Amino acid sequence: MRTLLLELRFDGEAYHGWQVQPNGLTVQEVLQNALEQVLGRREGVTGCSRTDAGVHARQFFCHLRTDHPISPARLAAALNHFLPPSAAVLSCREVPADFHARYSCRGKTYRYHIRNAAVRDPFLVGRCLLWPYPLPADLLHDAAQDFLGAHDFSAFCAAGSSADSKIRTVTRAEVRREGDDVFFFAAADGFLYHMVRIMAGTLLELAKTPDRCVPGRIAQILASQDRTQAGPTAPPAGLCLWEVRYGGDAWPKECS
Amino acid sequence: MRTLLLELRFDGEAYHGWQVQPNGLTVQEVLQNALEQVLGRREGVTGCSRTDAGVHARQFFCHLRTDHPISPARLAAALNHFLPPSAAVLSCREVPADFHARYSCRGKTYRYHIRNAAVRDPFLVGRCLLWPYPLPADLLHDAAQDFLGAHDFSAFCAAGSSADSKIRTVTRAEVRREGDDVFFFAAADGFLYHMVRIMAGTLLELAKTPDRCVPGRIAQILASQDRTQAGPTAPPAGLCLWEVRYGGDAWPKECS
Repeated sequence: MRTLLLELRFDGEAYHGWQVQPNGLTVQEVLQNALEQVLGRREGVTGCSRTDAGVHARQFFCHLRTDHPISPARLAAALNHFLPPSAAVLSCREVPADFHARYSCRGKTYRYHIRNAAVRDPFLVGRCLLWPYPLPADLLHDAAQDFLGAHDFSAFCAAGSSADSKIRTVTRAEVRREGDDVFFFAAADGFLYHMVRIMAGTLLELAKTPDRCVPGRIAQILASQDRTQAGPTAPPAGLCLWEVRYGGDAWPKECS
Repeated sequence: MRTLLLELRFDGEAYHGWQVQPNGLTVQEVLQNALEQVLGRREGVTGCSRTDAGVHARQFFCHLRTDHPISPARLAAALNHFLPPSAAVLSCREVPADFHARYSCRGKTYRYHIRNAAVRDPFLVGRCLLWPYPLPADLLHDAAQDFLGAHDFSAFCAAGSSADSKIRTVTRAEVRREGDDVFFFAAADGFLYHMVRIMAGTLLELAKTPDRCVPGRIAQILASQDRTQAGPTAPPAGLCLWEVRYGGDAWPKECS
């Protein structure tokens, strides 16, 4: 029995998220369908995280345990043949038997993409939030620095979370403008349900009330541990799982 | 009667090109439908060029002549409400009465996008050509310099062209690599039927035969005036009308 790790990329617009659902196509389902075509049997795959419907992934990992002898390179090429164009396997490698795409994960980076323009860009439809109002990226970046460090993120967690602890350690909170595009990058050891979308929605609410857009405001919201103090949940299209980090024992040297 | 100039952008994957066709949706058709919704009457629009099915436009212009009193800014906003997400009006302005989107045009720039990687990128599907073979961008750039200047482009013109003269003046022919993406930019005073796609297809053929990929090879093909000497027509998805230039009397100062 080998453990294989697949690195995926997908355009989330076509999917109801990663996890198999009774109503709606998911990435896990199309991947398992492709695996069945290639291996001739149904294999389960375990993802590094759930993603919401419409959320994208520049990098996503999942593992499967199989006794099929196919080589990792051949499996990747064959899966790309059977997957729809909106999903692709970027790489496949064998990892230690106890590797787990979710539990071995050390951290993730998400990117939230805001198109700050009056008119939509047809090439970015479904991939960003269109925001035709003023967006002071520098001020938002300063305000976002309060996210850094270990905090209880209850105020940035949607109802329905099953997490035991709401404490997460954020290692990057960056708001950056590139022309009409404003990007919010958030990295942490883990994320709660809707956490990045609520962080983004809170920054956008601060942009609407510049007098409240000050360092310390996010810290107040964090301290409140009250979801109603934070902003609304930003729409899924702007969100992209950007990078997934493994390391240490879980990620052998030849894989890093 | 005013002449209004519309600046458009569209994702060509959804369309059978610009020009209205009996079978298949076109950009001109969806624009005329939106105009009818806004103005309450059917108005004709004239584009700066035809584009092939599946070809994109980062910048495209068309004009209409109308006696409707709507302001240009209001017209643009209303059209964006009724257009599908894959097309947008970036701007609208009044131009001199005799302005013509096609005949007043001084030149255009096209970009051909080649994804030089083993695996497709789900975010670029329908927007580039996937090329998993070696692609020596520097050599191709050198070879492409033969395109510059005024030449008879008969060898780079598809059958069915109605152009009287096949002489065009190319002012830019640049092959540039950015990571896994290779871009071919071509600017000229005008283009023949399939001209950029044949130019790109010829460069790709030279990439497959590096010993023939030398300065002078393109000049030989040009001199032959023989379509069979050039390479195949590269697929439409990689092509994007990048920039359209007006100027001089046709383009009043306040519009430039």
